Amino acid sequence: MAGIESVRADLYRIPLSTALTDSTHGSMVDFELIAVRVRDEDGVEGLGYTYTVHTGGTAIRAMISDYLSPVLRGRDADLVERRWQDMWWALHYAGRGGHVTSAISAVDIALWDLKAIRASVPLWRLFGGYDPQVPVYAGGIDLELPLPELLAQSDRFQDDGFRAIKMKVGRPDLREDVARVAAMREHLGADFPLMADANMKWTGQQAVRAARVLEPHDLVWLEEPTVPEDLEGHARVVRETGCAVASGENLHTLDEFRRTIEAGAVTHPEPDVSNCGGFTVFRRICALAEAHQLPVTSHGVHDLTVHALAAAPNRTYMEAHGFGLEDYQAQPLRPRDGVVQAPERPGHGVDLDFDRLEALRT
Amino acid sequence: MAGIESVRADLYRIPLSTALTDSTHGSMVDFELIAVRVRDEDGVEGLGYTYTVHTGGTAIRAMISDYLSPVLRGRDADLVERRWQDMWWALHYAGRGGHVTSAISAVDIALWDLKAIRASVPLWRLFGGYDPQVPVYAGGIDLELPLPELLAQSDRFQDDGFRAIKMKVGRPDLREDVARVAAMREHLGADFPLMADANMKWTGQQAVRAARVLEPHDLVWLEEPTVPEDLEGHARVVRETGCAVASGENLHTLDEFRRTIEAGAVTHPEPDVSNCGGFTVFRRICALAEAHQLPVTSHGVHDLTVHALAAAPNRTYMEAHGFGLEDYQAQPLRPRDGVVQAPERPGHGVDLDFDRLEALRT
Ligand SMILES: [Mg+2]
Ligand SMILES: [Mg+2]
Repeated sequence: MAGIESVRADLYRIPLSTALTDSTHGSMVDFELIAVRVRDEDGVEGLGYTYTVHTGGTAIRAMISDYLSPVLRGRDADLVERRWQDMWWALHYAGRGGHVTSAISAVDIALWDLKAIRASVPLWRLFGGYDPQVPVYAGGIDLELPLPELLAQSDRFQDDGFRAIKMKVGRPDLREDVARVAAMREHLGADFPLMADANMKWTGQQAVRAARVLEPHDLVWLEEPTVPEDLEGHARVVRETGCAVASGENLHTLDEFRRTIEAGAVTHPEPDVSNCGGFTVFRRICALAEAHQLPVTSHGVHDLTVHALAAAPNRTYMEAHGFGLEDYQAQPLRPRDGVVQAPERPGHGVDLDFDRLEALRT
Repeated sequence: MAGIESVRADLYRIPLSTALTDSTHGSMVDFELIAVRVRDEDGVEGLGYTYTVHTGGTAIRAMISDYLSPVLRGRDADLVERRWQDMWWALHYAGRGGHVTSAISAVDIALWDLKAIRASVPLWRLFGGYDPQVPVYAGGIDLELPLPELLAQSDRFQDDGFRAIKMKVGRPDLREDVARVAAMREHLGADFPLMADANMKWTGQQAVRAARVLEPHDLVWLEEPTVPEDLEGHARVVRETGCAVASGENLHTLDEFRRTIEAGAVTHPEPDVSNCGGFTVFRRICALAEAHQLPVTSHGVHDLTVHALAAAPNRTYMEAHGFGLEDYQAQPLRPRDGVVQAPERPGHGVDLDFDRLEALRT
């Protein structure tokens, strides 16, 4: 047994080169990165991280440093399932999801990284291995971009190797959304995979209406049409329109995914490995989706996610979006012809430049 | 308009005079109190608080100090509903419940207190007013107490003015639970209201079995037979046995209560005003329960809760349990003949002794 010697959590505020905009979070100028390094008694280190849209980071750091670290230190790093339960129950009262899951996710990712590094295998192979070539799409965060810039951005995405793109919808007037989606469809061509993301902007009824008027533009999916609590609103879009529905970035437990799937509220479950409970839970969500004959997509942190999706037979497009973390990585994933290649380096293979991050520490 | 001038959050670690025991949290020797003081531009101050079972307090304090305070300062303190929405959306991403709700609860309670103090009325009257005499029960946290001490504790509860008592169940062998409940029933007499709390110990099947064998002992309710995610386990107890079911201390949103009630999983919704979203949400849960023809009980912080239940026609027994906070209050509630009297002091009327608490600051 290699006991856990230390659990280190650091918080950084990463500036964005350009402000990102969606219908719920307004204008985002930076994000919080919470990086966790778990070191075992042999000095081997695993890395995990999670992030927030601007708020909550100091709380996540406190959860890890003050409450998770004490239940982890001295315990066997290799028994990840057991450590996950220890963490879940350590913060269960008043917790049971929310930021607790982000805290657990970061540690869980570090524990899986550590395990794979010790075994000298890449994570996607440790997870079983299906296909290292994972289709990817560019997640534009662009609700406020003027139309010419939106189209220009889609050209840049294609220059960067993407062959599928998601755009934001949820502008004050639905006709603006329709005009922008129509312009993108015309610009990209009939066969180009295009998704749209409403970031919980609408009521169920508004979502049904939006899905109907967007139907001629043949979206791969419409994302988060309503708040995640409104399962019936999601389900109405699925049942009453021709539109597929993705949801998951705001679901934080396996139970939330189960309920959403069983309600017929989602056709493309979209967990974020950094806030759904880490690889331990992400992989269960893949299995749950498979049991329901659903494909699985993803949200955020694609350099980590690629390992889970490269091991999942039912994976569809992985999201890649530009939170600027690639500027602090030695070898960020680069799409080519619409796919990324899961790395063969041991663990997840993400190498953060902590020297450069130091200036951004909070 | 009286703008919010400051939001102060302090964390204290309150020792318990004797260790408390239940089936999930083991032996509890202290709890974390997070106290919030909201001061307006006129210098009027409202007090709110929440607590944890030992873990999570530094994260809750960080949420309030680092993220809620900035969205509150300068805003109108009187528009509590509006401030609640500001707080919910400030920490929505990665949040949406869990410790976020505890943080919001503490601030919400302080805002309601401030509003009522400014109006020179007690909160229960501001909330509409139904009956200041609220029936109460003693919540024993006593799973590991030897039987003679359990019975002696019930005598002390009666000496202290209680006329209803809850005990813990969920010992390793169900026969031990049955023997202890039977002994309590015999000791207290056939007419004495007795509840039992399993603190999520069982599977659904085990819970049905337990409810059946406990049936002859005529419990008022069986509490948290399974984890809160297992709505069907709860619902089976309700449907298949003669036993009522209370649940709510681990539900953190109105949506979680709605789902639990609609699943037929609870006969006695039991919100905790300090972790369900404050008075703003607690009162909606009372209304939701009423719409479903259900009584409403409560968990924790009875000196605050009494104001919500004194305004709710469908209230049943309020929980009072001994986290030792009464040692730091000027005028804690005291039951008499099984009821407590909601105070006539402005606001909630809880006066914490911050000078004495100072030594316990973390
Ligand atoms: Mg999205
Ligand atoms: Mg309980």
